Order: sequence, then structure tokens, then C-alpha cells
Amino acid sequence: MGNTFGTLFRLTTFGESHGKAVGGIIDGFPAGFEVDFHAIDSALARRRPTQEFETPRHEPDHVQFLSGLMDGRTLGTPIAFVVENHQYNSADYDALKDVFRPSHADYTYHAKYHIRDHRGGGRASARETVARVVAGALAMQFLEKQGVTINACVTRIGNVQVPDTEHLDFVQAQASPLRCPDSNAERQMRQLIAKTKAKGDTLGGVMTCVVSGCKAGLGEPLFDKLGATLAHAMMSIPSARGFEIGEGFVSAVMTGSAYADPFNADFTTQTNRSGGMQGGISNGMDIRFSVAFHPVVTTAKPLQCVDSEGNILAVEPRGRHDVCHVPRTVPIVQSMAAMVVLDAFLLQKTQS
Amino acid sequence: MGNTFGTLFRLTTFGESHGKAVGGIIDGFPAGFEVDFHAIDSALARRRPTQEFETPRHEPDHVQFLSGLMDGRTLGTPIAFVVENHQYNSADYDALKDVFRPSHADYTYHAKYHIRDHRGGGRASARETVARVVAGALAMQFLEKQGVTINACVTRIGNVQVPDTEHLDFVQAQASPLRCPDSNAERQMRQLIAKTKAKGDTLGGVMTCVVSGCKAGLGEPLFDKLGATLAHAMMSIPSARGFEIGEGFVSAVMTGSAYADPFNADFTTQTNRSGGMQGGISNGMDIRFSVAFHPVVTTAKPLQCVDSEGNILAVEPRGRHDVCHVPRTVPIVQSMAAMVVLDAFLLQKTQS
Amino acid sequence: MGNTFGTLFRLTTFGESHGKAVGGIIDGFPAGFEVDFHAIDSALARRRPTQEFETPRHEPDHVQFLSGLMDGRTLGTPIAFVVENHQYNSADYDALKDVFRPSHADYTYHAKYHIRDHRGGGRASARETVARVVAGALAMQFLEKQGVTINACVTRIGNVQVPDTEHLDFVQAQASPLRCPDSNAERQMRQLIAKTKAKGDTLGGVMTCVVSGCKAGLGEPLFDKLGATLAHAMMSIPSARGFEIGEGFVSAVMTGSAYADPFNADFTTQTNRSGGMQGGISNGMDIRFSVAFHPVVTTAKPLQCVDSEGNILAVEPRGRHDVCHVPRTVPIVQSMAAMVVLDAFLLQKTQS
Amino acid sequence: MGNTFGTLFRLTTFGESHGKAVGGIIDGFPAGFEVDFHAIDSALARRRPTQEFETPRHEPDHVQFLSGLMDGRTLGTPIAFVVENHQYNSADYDALKDVFRPSHADYTYHAKYHIRDHRGGGRASARETVARVVAGALAMQFLEKQGVTINACVTRIGNVQVPDTEHLDFVQAQASPLRCPDSNAERQMRQLIAKTKAKGDTLGGVMTCVVSGCKAGLGEPLFDKLGATLAHAMMSIPSARGFEIGEGFVSAVMTGSAYADPFNADFTTQTNRSGGMQGGISNGMDIRFSVAFHPVVTTAKPLQCVDSEGNILAVEPRGRHDVCHVPRTVPIVQSMAAMVVLDAFLLQKTQS
Repeated sequence: MGNTFGTLFRLTTFGESHGKAVGGIIDGFPAGFEVDFHAIDSALARRRPTQEFETPRHEPDHVQFLSGLMDGRTLGTPIAFVVENHQYNSADYDALKDVFRPSHADYTYHAKYHIRDHRGGGRASARETVARVVAGALAMQFLEKQGVTINACVTRIGNVQVPDTEHLDFVQAQASPLRCPDSNAERQMRQLIAKTKAKGDTLGGVMTCVVSGCKAGLGEPLFDKLGATLAHAMMSIPSARGFEIGEGFVSAVMTGSAYADPFNADFTTQTNRSGGMQGGISNGMDIRFSVAFHPVVTTAKPLQCVDSEGNILAVEPRGRHDVCHVPRTVPIVQSMAAMVVLDAFLLQKTQS
Repeated sequence: MGNTFGTLFRLTTFGESHGKAVGGIIDGFPAGFEVDFHAIDSALARRRPTQEFETPRHEPDHVQFLSGLMDGRTLGTPIAFVVENHQYNSADYDALKDVFRPSHADYTYHAKYHIRDHRGGGRASARETVARVVAGALAMQFLEKQGVTINACVTRIGNVQVPDTEHLDFVQAQASPLRCPDSNAERQMRQLIAKTKAKGDTLGGVMTCVVSGCKAGLGEPLFDKLGATLAHAMMSIPSARGFEIGEGFVSAVMTGSAYADPFNADFTTQTNRSGGMQGGISNGMDIRFSVAFHPVVTTAKPLQCVDSEGNILAVEPRGRHDVCHVPRTVPIVQSMAAMVVLDAFLLQKTQS
Repeated sequence: MGNTFGTLFRLTTFGESHGKAVGGIIDGFPAGFEVDFHAIDSALARRRPTQEFETPRHEPDHVQFLSGLMDGRTLGTPIAFVVENHQYNSADYDALKDVFRPSHADYTYHAKYHIRDHRGGGRASARETVARVVAGALAMQFLEKQGVTINACVTRIGNVQVPDTEHLDFVQAQASPLRCPDSNAERQMRQLIAKTKAKGDTLGGVMTCVVSGCKAGLGEPLFDKLGATLAHAMMSIPSARGFEIGEGFVSAVMTGSAYADPFNADFTTQTNRSGGMQGGISNGMDIRFSVAFHPVVTTAKPLQCVDSEGNILAVEPRGRHDVCHVPRTVPIVQSMAAMVVLDAFLLQKTQS
Repeated sequence: MGNTFGTLFRLTTFGESHGKAVGGIIDGFPAGFEVDFHAIDSALARRRPTQEFETPRHEPDHVQFLSGLMDGRTLGTPIAFVVENHQYNSADYDALKDVFRPSHADYTYHAKYHIRDHRGGGRASARETVARVVAGALAMQFLEKQGVTINACVTRIGNVQVPDTEHLDFVQAQASPLRCPDSNAERQMRQLIAKTKAKGDTLGGVMTCVVSGCKAGLGEPLFDKLGATLAHAMMSIPSARGFEIGEGFVSAVMTGSAYADPFNADFTTQTNRSGGMQGGISNGMDIRFSVAFHPVVTTAKPLQCVDSEGNILAVEPRGRHDVCHVPRTVPIVQSMAAMVVLDAFLLQKTQS
């Protein structure tokens, strides 16, 4: 349960971090679409840690498609794909077999299932997001043909905040290893990362995503408002802790007269405080939202753990950890957004 | 589509603001439960505007149950309920027939359905939340028998913030007309509301909700993490614009070592920065989250609208508007939380 | 659970036989459709017992719509409707409170829920099919505008079988109180019914349904083949015990070369042994299927029951019983078929 | 869409006949279960054609599990599995690229998706049932630990019918290459098959399935009655054309007093005409149902086809075809039954 996302465009994923593979099945992708496989590889590459700021990992991920395609075109049938896991030394994790790390999913998986794959985080590892990126990259290329673009960038790392989050330079962000749209802020972020790395600690941050070119009318009130399904999607990403649409938490401080977005004669609005939707339905303006991520809890410092008998013990960290994982979360946010928007797009077809 | 919420415990709702009634069908509620009808009426009463701060409305809402109950006990069959709408003068709304108000769902419903009930907001009116409160009040009383309590209070109105959001006095909040847990903050809120009312404007705010007594193991990774389904639920509430779990947006500023919640020997944690869940599964600690609400856009001032021909026009506001609707949103947040937790509770039964 | 039918066009129903009302919520019906309320009343009237062959009931059912409509047009929002139950003397059923009648749902509801509404069959009563007929009549009128017609008639009562089930005279059937397309067979059926009534017994039968004008391409392989969703729909009707598509059970006796439907140059087929679908997808030919119904088990004879303590006892039958309920099941079969086809039609829009 | 089956126990499948692989993802399987991999291989072997009566195929199918298991135990996370396809000479099928065979899914897939994998039936090939058998074998071994057994056998091939379908010798059937429970009938079936094979033709048949040891209370009224979900499951199997529960079509000929199953004092019934369920809920008796299969349409004779331009042409059959595919459909019927019953079992846990 809980391993499927979407109503008409549906992704079902599988895979533990140290199992044979991760992957998924995409159902409901329209037939006859010519797939750009290179774009999928690019998205997967953007998800990988960069050597500069994060622990390097092994060779690139390679996605293998098992079904749903013929001569590079979608058949309308389910698209299954598999990405093999690299060969880790799982024995490294033997010490963690009966140990629960703080603020990890160790104890909670144990409480839920009474059994758990303790190696590299198992199913709770961010490794699973590979499958989201493959499906999202497919969804995104379909949407691009419809004139929709989905951009995301890092607008905060730790206490360094991009000053202007309204005008985001996505070209600059794409070129930046930190996916930061502002060079000044990026410089400060680099310094903060270096300083934090020296202390063996980690950093969280905030991402802002903008969906442009989306026509008015997408989103299913009442419970499946566009903002609600986007929130669901984003908060399902590992380490996501906050979500806001448009002015978000700031809107709570505004007065009603200041919050309203006045109309233009062509039904666009002069401002976009509501982030591109009203009553859960897109209004044709940019869809804007932000997601907050907590820092990775595994640092270079020993973790105060508890074992299944209730003994408190300090465990030396093993395996990789990123100083700041937020930049490489960009394609994951884009992917989840693409899946939500494509699903809404397909649902809206039933109204035509 | 989009009018059903939940997997095993499911609420399907109906109703436009000026139609005959609003209501819903609850499916999946366990059989044999003795219903406390008084608690449902109480929850509905808490959802009503108070005369002090908000525009008074007509007589109290009365819920009529049509099925699923015998001698006050649930049968396991669907529980249908209806709450009649009061008799409004719908002619008041004739002027809005072909007019789209700014930051309302007028234009977007039009774009989606090419037809719209323009009277009192139609389906997009907060009137529909009556059905959520009925279902939520039922879910909540079931959970209470399981030792779960769900409290919520107002922690911000406009620029007035409750100073300590970690220790919330829910008894105080319950007694307060503003649902504020802090008497000092409440005084300031009252002043702000009075001042804003005098200007004919409105205010937004933030609500904090705490679910206590929830056992570890609830929530379905991967896409239906407890935080993701709570986010979905909360962001589906009219005017919700932001959501955060535990430290939320603040966690983005913390370092990994500061963010971790150290374990106690009994698997509780010394702090609760993660808000009661890891990997999307409850850990037995309090589940804590906040929701930001934008102010109501209909104020006492004329609204700059556009009609369906693209003519910009100023429309005098009609009907009621609350200076601050956040206090009476408390039972709605509680209700949605109760539905999410009960659904997770039922799903977890399949693991036993 | 289990009280919702459909994927995009969804009906959720409620109601016990002796509760206040039965009804439902229709979600996903396209917006802007002008409803023919008279057609709904007609369908409900066809579902009622006729005085000639069945126990007469009270005044006609009247459906009240609570939402989703304005000026007789659908809004795209959920359409809720309620049909009040007539005032029965529920005390008549007191003797059945702790008694399980043979081949009724008394014992199974008790086993499932440990509580049960024993009055008039409760939720298991065929009374619930009122809600199916309302939703189906709506679906049917939408389909008619698309050129689809759905006819059904009685092809067997007891041992009287309509001789030619390939060429069914639906005009004749519609005019016939027994919904029989063949006057000779009807005469025999009448005799059989009279004879059976005299013995205080009851009869089952078979219905054949034909959906015409359905374009090729409807149905979702692999698990939701058109034949599979039709089977699901039909076997969910009270007393349905068998289902077959096209040649059905007879196809098991045919050879492959005899079973094949040869193509014409316009992609129609010369025969229609497969009943209008291949691989679970409609082929543009008539969709033909049959449903077998067991006789009503409550007869004029005493029923050998068991009480909850395990005592065997004979219970005199109370309340109404039809000698043969199959003719009035016609609109229910049509309704379920209409819901399946409309759902498939909407799903197929996402491929366009 | 349509590639997922089940509510709590869910199978999502993928794969075209001549693609790289077929397989699936199982979600909702309970955690901590020790898997009997040998039983899965056995079920797959029973699905393979036997050399005696059917065209032999290549080496046995081998299932590879990619996730959801550790040390042979289920983790509660999704279980992904892949079965590679054998290397066919797909060029054999080039002649069928723009040709629609009669009573195949060629034309209907074309009408639905406007693109189609023409090689070996593509997604419409019975090859996909491999995934059903893997998932079903897992479901079945879980149910066996709960005391539930699921047996199926062939009760008709062509015009040869097993005389007594009430007392079925499943031990005999299991040992029989034709899965026939009666040695006399089997002899006649062999003769019929030989004769039909000599003519280059094919045969259909009927299978009867019995689920024993199932407790009372399973099944979700109203739309998801146990008989309805079984019907859905069975009619989704390639070539299934008819379904009946208990007395099925015969019940239409019975009188109500003859149809009733009288109770014993222990709530079992003296007869089982209703096939183990009332009101869609299991009653603790054997669940009995039958499924009719049409013969495979590809025979040794030329097929009268139509090409996409509307030209009628005769096409020589290629690839394999079974004289009678019904015996090897036994594990598929068992598998689908196991998935339905396990799903109902898990759903019923929420009532406890």
C-alpha cells in the first residue's frame, strides 16, 4: 500500500536501497508518444550527487525499459523500468541490524512491519526517488509538447536565502551546481557548505518550483485540489517537512485586500499571490510553490541510537552522506510536479 | 471526481452553498460503534462564526442521518447525512452571474466546467466543510476510544504570533473565542481584529494541530506517508496555503546534528523536531503540524472584478464575510486530521 | 467499503430498506448536461413491481436531487439524491431480530459486522437498487446523446426460454409486463407464473442486454476488460448468479474455427459470437451479455431458519415477495451497463 | 489504466509477449511471511503447455524477485518480479503488422491506442498471465496458512462434460494432464482433442473452482460482493466468456423453495446452491464457481483477416497454438481466486 501515485497517470514503484534494483511501472501514459530517452538520463544525472559538495557515488544509474514501448514509442500499455542497484558492501550495515538511528525510519519501519531491511535505509532510502525521476521525466516531456514547463531551484540552504524569490533565473540555476538562481547567494551557500562540511555536519534548505504554461481548469475540487495533490506529492519526498503555495505562510500575515490578485481584461492577474490556482483549480498563471527539506541526519558525528532491547549506544556513521542534499532534490520535485500536472491534465480531458 | 477522501475510511461529500443541502456519505466506519451525536453537534457549533468577531449567521446547522445507524450504533454500512442549507436570498447574487471576483474560484470553475453556480460561492464555498466536520467528529470519537486525542488552536492571526508554539494550552484555547492558547496573544489578536474590522479588511492566520496518543506504525510509505496524507488533507481546506510538519520550514535552517531527535530507552524521543513521524510512519510521539490560511478576500471594500466579456468592473461586496475565519477553521483541521489518522489506523490493522 | 462503483463516473450509495431513505452521490458526471428528469422517473417506475405478477407496493418512488444541478443542468459537481423510504411497519420484523433465514444475507451480515439491521433485509435488500437506477438513468441519457442505446429483456423465466435470443424485439419487450420480447414465450411464462403463484413459490430467470452504437476502443485491458467490469457490475446485483458475454458458456462447446467472427471490409464482423469485444476492448459491434438470477427465496411457505443460538425454527414469511422479480430487474441491468459504458467512454477520452 | 488488480492486496502487471519481460509489482502483501519459492515455480510449471496436448514451448519460465524480500521473508514493501521472455523470432510476425486477425485483440487495440505491438499478441497475449500466477501463488500460500485451500479442475472440454460437478476429485485432477477429475470423462476428452487436433482445430471448455476453509464474513457489499469481484477477476482472464456462482445459470430454472440452502444448527448449510456466499459475503461453506473459456481462435487453418486498408485476406497461422488451452488455465483461475480472497481477508481485518 502507498506505493502507487496518481489517478489516471499512475506510478507504482519498488525497491530497497541494497536490493537488486529499484524501478516502477507507469500506467496511463498516453499511447503513441515518442520518448526522449536522453532527457530521462539527464534527469537521472541531475539527481546524482556532485563531487564538489556531496559524497561521490558509483557509476551513473542506467534505466532499462522492459515493456510498454515499441520503436521508441509508447504503446498505451504499462511502461516497466528497472534501475539496478550498485554493489554495496552490505556487511557494512551489520552493526545496524538491531539498532535504531535517531530521526531515521529504522524504528518506525520496525514498529509497522516487525521486520526491516536495515541495509542502507532499505525502502526508506532516498534511493527510491530514482523511480520518481524516470516517471517524472517522461511526464515532463509529454507536458512540454503541451507547452508546459516545470522549473525548480534552490532558494535557501541553511540560513542563506535567495533575496528575490519572485523573479527566479532558472537558466542560472540550471548551470549552478547548487541549482541556485542567484550568484551572490550561491557564493554564500558555498561558504556555508564548506564550513559545515568541516564541522562534519549537514544542511537543509528550501526549493521553489514554477510550472508555466499550464492552462486554466486543471485540478479536481474538492479534496483533490491542485494545491492538495501537489502538497501530497511534495511531502512524500524523503526529508520534506514543509510546503506552501503562492504567498504561503506569508499570506497569513497579509490582509484580504492586499492578498487579492486583481484581474486583467484577458483573465490573467496583475499579481500572483495565490500561486496560480483558486478553489484548487489552475487559473492559467504560473503555479508556484516551495518545499522545505530538513538536513540529512546522518553526519560525520557518532549517532546516539537505541537498540531493540532499549540500550542507548553511539554508532559511528557509515556509508555516504551529503552535506546538503537539497540541490540534487531538484529533479525529484520537478518529477513529482510533472506527475501531478499530467494527471490533472488527463482528468480534465474527461470534461471536454 | 475529487469529492471522496480516504482509502478505507472514506468520506464523499456534496453540496453547493445555496443548494438544498450539503452532506456526505461515510464508508468504512467500523460497525457496532455507539455514536455520540452531541459531540457532532458541538463540533458543528464550533465551526459557526461567533457574533463577536464574525458576521452572525442564521440558526445552527442540524445534521440528519439517513442510513448506517440503528439504535444509535453504526451498522458497518454507509452513513449518509444531510445538513439543509438556510434560505438565502440568492437573487442577491444575480449581479455576480457573469462576473469573476479576484482570488475567488469563480473564473477557475468557469474555466473547468463552463458552467458554475455563482450563488454564494457554489461548491467552492466553505459551506462544504460542514460535511467534513460531521465525518471528522465521528472519526474523532472513534479515535478517542483508542486513546487518541486531536487538538488544534490558532497560533497566529495576522502579525500576532503565539510566542511558545511548543507548549500549547489547549484548555485555554478551547475556552477562547479566538481558539488562542495564550491570553496575551489573544488580547493583541482582538485589538488587531477590531482595527482591521474598522478598516473593512480581513485577516489570515496559522493553526497548529497536535495528535496525541497515536501508536507507532501508522502511515503508508512511500507515497502515502503520514505527513503527505495530512498535507493533502489540510491543503484541501478552503484558503489553506501552507503546511508544515514538526519544525517544518525552520528545519531547513537547522544542521543535521541539531535536527536529530535523540532516543530514550523506551523508544520515545527527547525532542520532537520531526513532529511524530519518520519515513512517513508515526513513531508514537505527538504528531504536530501547522497550516497557514490566507485571509478571506471578500472584504467590505469593492472588489475589482472582470466579467466574462473581459470588462473590468468594481463590485460592492454582498453577503457575509468574516474578519478572521481562522478560529472557526479549528474543527475543520481537527476533522481532516481525524479522518487521516483513522484511515491510517484501519490500514495498519491489515498488518496485524 | 464497497459502496462505490466506477473509476471516473462514480456512484456511491447508501440506505437500508427500513431506514429513512436510500440514495447516493454521483461524481464525475460531465458538466453542462441538461437532465431529463422524466426519464429518471420512468426508469424508477419500471423497477417497481406490477400489480399483475408481483406484490403491489406503495406509492411511486420520488427522487429528490440535493446538489450538482442548476436550472436543470449538471454543474460538474457531485449530484446527490435521496429517495425516501415508505413507512413500513418495522415491528413486523421483530421476530426476525435474532433469526437467520436460509439463503438470505442475515447470517453473513451478522458474521461480518456482528450487528445487523434485520428489518426488511436492511442494506442487503434490493431496495438499494433504487439508487443504481437513478444514476444509471442519468448515465443512459448522456450515452444516448452519443448514439449509444442500452436495451435489456427477459429471455428466460424458470424453464421457459425465449427461442431466438439473437434477434430480440425490444419494442415488444418494453410493452410486455414481463419484459419478454416474444409473445409465445410470454404466454408460457404467464402460465408458469400463475401456476407457481398458486403453489406459493417463486421463479428465477435470465436477462439479455444489448448495448448498441458503442464505438470501438472502450475498455481498459488488462484487469478492467469491458467484459470484466460488466461482469462485476452485473454480479453485484442482488440475486445475480451467472454472467456471460456473447456466446458465453456455449462458446466452450464450439471449435475455434466456428467461434471466430469473420471481418467485413469496414471492420464490422459478419457474426458477433464474441459479444462486441476482444481483448476486453469494444470492437464497435453490439455488446451482448446475459445475466442469470436465482428465484427470490422468500416464498409463501414457512422458511426453515436458525436463530443465533443455533436453534432450528420455522418462520412464517412476512412482508412482500415477488413470484418473479426478474422483469423488474431490467432497469437495474440497464443502469449498471450504462454506468460501465459511460465510465469506459470517459476513460477513453484520455487517449484522445 | 486497468493494469492493477485489488484493493489492499494489489497486483500491477506489465509486459508484452515479445518484449523483454513480463512481470509485476505486488503491494500490500503482509510483512514477515516466509515465501515458498518452490510453490511459485510449480504453479508456473502447471501454467506451461504440456507436450502431449499442446504445442511445446521453450525452457521453463524463471521468476526473478527484485525487491520486497530479505532472507526469504516478505518485508511489507512492494514485491517486484520479472520473468524474461524467450527469444522469439519476431520477424515471423512482420506479415501481421497491419493485419487484424478475426476475434483477436488486433483491431480493438488499434482502435483504442492507434498503435499496437503486433508481435505475438503484444499485451493481449496470454503471456501476461505469468504475472498473475506468480502473485496468485504467493497469495495462495498465505491463505493456506489460514486454512484456506483453492482447487480448480476442468469440468468440460468441448462437448465432453464431467458428469458430477458437485463431488470433484481434485487429487485425480491434479494428477491428470487434462486437470480432469473424472477418468472416464478424461478418456473422452483425450479422444476429442486428438480428433480436433487432426482437423487442425481447437477446443474451449469450462473450469470449476472451489475455495474451502474460508471463514464467514469475507466480501464487501454492495458493489464489491465476493461474487462480483470473483466475476471481475475471472472475466479478466484471456478467453473467459462466462462465469457462474453456485448453481449459476441452473438457479434460473429452480423455484425459490428448491433453491434455498437449509441451515444446520452450527450455521453450516445442508446444501450449497448459493456457492458459499449470500449478499456478497462468504458464509463459511465452500465457495464454488465455474468459468467458461472460448476456444483459441488461431488454428492450423488460414485465418480470414482484414488489413488496415479494409482488404480481406487469408493469413496462414504462425507461432504456436494449443488445441485446448483450458487445462493450463487452471493455475490462472486459482491465482485470481487467491488474490480476490486474500484481498477480502485483509479488508475484513479492519472490522476486527
